Amino acid sequence: MSESESGIEEAEVDVDFGEDGLVPAIAQDADSGEVLMLAYVSPEALDRTLETGEAHYYSRSREELWHKGGTSGHVQSIEEVRVDCDEDTLLYLVDQTGGACHTGHRSCFHRTIDGEHVGERVFEPDEVY
Amino acid sequence: MSESESGIEEAEVDVDFGEDGLVPAIAQDADSGEVLMLAYVSPEALDRTLETGEAHYYSRSREELWHKGGTSGHVQSIEEVRVDCDEDTLLYLVDQTGGACHTGHRSCFHRTIDGEHVGERVFEPDEVY
Repeated sequence: MSESESGIEEAEVDVDFGEDGLVPAIAQDADSGEVLMLAYVSPEALDRTLETGEAHYYSRSREELWHKGGTSGHVQSIEEVRVDCDEDTLLYLVDQTGGACHTGHRSCFHRTIDGEHVGERVFEPDEVY
Repeated sequence: MSESESGIEEAEVDVDFGEDGLVPAIAQDADSGEVLMLAYVSPEALDRTLETGEAHYYSRSREELWHKGGTSGHVQSIEEVRVDCDEDTLLYLVDQTGGACHTGHRSCFHRTIDGEHVGERVFEPDEVY
């Protein structure tokens, strides 16, 4: 533990990957602040993200390491990785190429809970995947 | 299914609460865009959120419905609730009173993965809890 200039104690970050070995990670556009997506991160995915500077996740459906944009080219360049107070959630601040969502939208959160369409569509999925 | 003005099909939203009956919900400041916290939401918590206009979650540690700010007064007024493309994550756009984090910070994401302190402290936890 050390004392920062602001007087708030800082400690080493020890991410709590929990029982399933994964933590949720929120990807946020570093410039606009738009929340783009949420996915899950394994220790290996976090290591790869920090090593390469591009967002990696763990695909729960495919059960494998997932380099976001590896197929589509819609990579996320990492500006900063943050961790929350409980150390069990990550925040990826990213520069998103293209769109984050496989539906062609900039953000996966392109609908309200009432089903209203509020998001911006930025590419044609059939032309990318 | 219906066709929206933009030509993108819209469907009823059917939130996938998964095996444990919970979905992660990201709380984002509706004005500044700051990501404040991530917590989990049960069907009851979502119902209460939509009924009352204040963010409710399910506390996994206390195993009970959690009205955010019920103790501290730091409630989150709901501006909008969004759902992601897979319908298994929610985004609460909120007007946050005080700070979201029990440590006194505006956001729970007040540290980088390297332990650097980057967040704004807005209240003294000992005076609130």
